[in-house]
Amino acid sequence: MFNKVKIAVDAMGGENSPKKILDGIKISLKKNNDCFFYLYGNSEIISKHINGDKSLLDNCEIIDAKGEIQDNESPLKAAKRGKDSSMWKVIESQKENKSDISLSAGNTGALLVISRLVLNTIKGINKPALAALWPNNKDMNVVLDLGANIECDEKNLTDFACMGAALSKSLFNKNTPKVALLNVGLEEIKGNDVLKKTFQILKESKVKDFEFCGYIEGNQMMDGNIDVIITDGFTGNIALKTAEGTANFIAKNFKKSLSKLSLLLSYSSLKKFKEKLDPRKYNGAIFLGLESAVVKSHGSTDAVGFAHSIDVCRKIVHAKLIEKIKSHLITVDD
Amino acid sequence: MFNKVKIAVDAMGGENSPKKILDGIKISLKKNNDCFFYLYGNSEIISKHINGDKSLLDNCEIIDAKGEIQDNESPLKAAKRGKDSSMWKVIESQKENKSDISLSAGNTGALLVISRLVLNTIKGINKPALAALWPNNKDMNVVLDLGANIECDEKNLTDFACMGAALSKSLFNKNTPKVALLNVGLEEIKGNDVLKKTFQILKESKVKDFEFCGYIEGNQMMDGNIDVIITDGFTGNIALKTAEGTANFIAKNFKKSLSKLSLLLSYSSLKKFKEKLDPRKYNGAIFLGLESAVVKSHGSTDAVGFAHSIDVCRKIVHAKLIEKIKSHLITVDD
Repeated sequence: MFNKVKIAVDAMGGENSPKKILDGIKISLKKNNDCFFYLYGNSEIISKHINGDKSLLDNCEIIDAKGEIQDNESPLKAAKRGKDSSMWKVIESQKENKSDISLSAGNTGALLVISRLVLNTIKGINKPALAALWPNNKDMNVVLDLGANIECDEKNLTDFACMGAALSKSLFNKNTPKVALLNVGLEEIKGNDVLKKTFQILKESKVKDFEFCGYIEGNQMMDGNIDVIITDGFTGNIALKTAEGTANFIAKNFKKSLSKLSLLLSYSSLKKFKEKLDPRKYNGAIFLGLESAVVKSHGSTDAVGFAHSIDVCRKIVHAKLIEKIKSHLITVDD
Repeated sequence: MFNKVKIAVDAMGGENSPKKILDGIKISLKKNNDCFFYLYGNSEIISKHINGDKSLLDNCEIIDAKGEIQDNESPLKAAKRGKDSSMWKVIESQKENKSDISLSAGNTGALLVISRLVLNTIKGINKPALAALWPNNKDMNVVLDLGANIECDEKNLTDFACMGAALSKSLFNKNTPKVALLNVGLEEIKGNDVLKKTFQILKESKVKDFEFCGYIEGNQMMDGNIDVIITDGFTGNIALKTAEGTANFIAKNFKKSLSKLSLLLSYSSLKKFKEKLDPRKYNGAIFLGLESAVVKSHGSTDAVGFAHSIDVCRKIVHAKLIEKIKSHLITVDD
């Protein structure tokens, strides 16, 4: 067990928990038997669902936590009253070095607030950011911030660039990830003051950990030419949700246009399309900038999606992401 | 001619001009013979392309303007040296009350800058905004600002709401358009200070010209429940381009997944899909807030797309959009 990745799991967070959590762990264990899971939550309910399964019994330890954070609870209220919750205990287990990384499918806002309350930020970073995986024509890339920080300055965006590059290396083995700033045009004079200042800092930093490629526009995010896309949390959240809405709209309208026979004839290739763009594969947003990474699984994903977020945890710990972030940081004068 | 809508047209702007401009006018004249066109540009080239066509000769007047603004020219440079350009002359013709509305498929940035230099803003409006048509599950809606103003305050966003509502009434005959602010969540406490202040102003204004529906998130923009979506130009530009990129990405991947036989079998229904989402139908961004509206056609659209933007011009003039905007404005204390 001592060589295994120790993951603190919120067994009660998200829809269909703890069943989907346990099924996700089983899928993960079959594929990579290199993790050990600390399951936080109602021990009676969890035990009942484990139901004597040997792989789970061998690779999990249950830690009783009776409190629960609701999905629709306000983050601040949840943080205030939730010290006995499975989510809080999960984050605390990192503080105590019991686990290497935390994973929850519960209330995102509460998870961010509790993580910030319990864990220290990495020295030199003021604001942690939420990063997500974004599909593109070649494979997938990283985008941050997705909503943790509504307002950001040039120091924050520079930190996001360094953290995003470290994440891209950790997850995709990119040696020198290409980093760009999301903007409304490609010319140096485009955008607001914060973007222009960040552009100058990154351009002049002569950083070797990643390649700064200037600005990128919204319609190029899926081209696959950039590995790490940097934006403030407001813009990132709007972009992510607009992309989700558009993808659903187009796919629905396209499918509606096909005859039943056509759908049948293309069954296997449409399955491939669905597999390629399966949102479960992109499951696992990563909260970066704290002394330990916190991974957020989508609340409505299933066991397969949850297994993908376990894989994100594995890769992050194996790649020593936190060390990478520390060594990548660029000093910005306040 | 005196009862006709008088449109000042930049005959030289955009790809394949003036051919596509003239072909677009011909399409429009066949459908609605209620416009007269002042064509600004190189008179020899335009005459050659008109080539004796009777419908064009009857409904157009050529005004020679030898200068041209290039598509890749910086807007400020173009405005500085472009006083003899077809684009400048088009805008000037509104100043002189020669025409009711202006239409160009040329350089967007230059068009915005020249329009602001030549035309006055409507009294009470500080910043004009660029509005576009956005497809949704029911029909289409209006989104603004799409990039004219990188930074906006609560007064600007409130003006955008009033102008957008007037546009929605003019184009879609909506009696009481539903208006919402684009944000990262639906709760009143979400978003930045400017959004929260705008929310309060619109909530308390008891306006009767439109219904204020609070916030909307990026993934709901295509649901078709909101007629007018308000955002600053930075966020709006990112959202628009992200939606474009996502739509292309999904449609391309989906189509690639279909067998040739399936595509053949569904030929006619796929044609319907393409027709429904044909970007030419959404062609025509509207620059709002000046004493006269300026319509921007996409530079790369064809004659059919250009005819759609003529239709936008017609509807705006018939509906007396500028009067509607004036009567809709909400006073915001500075």
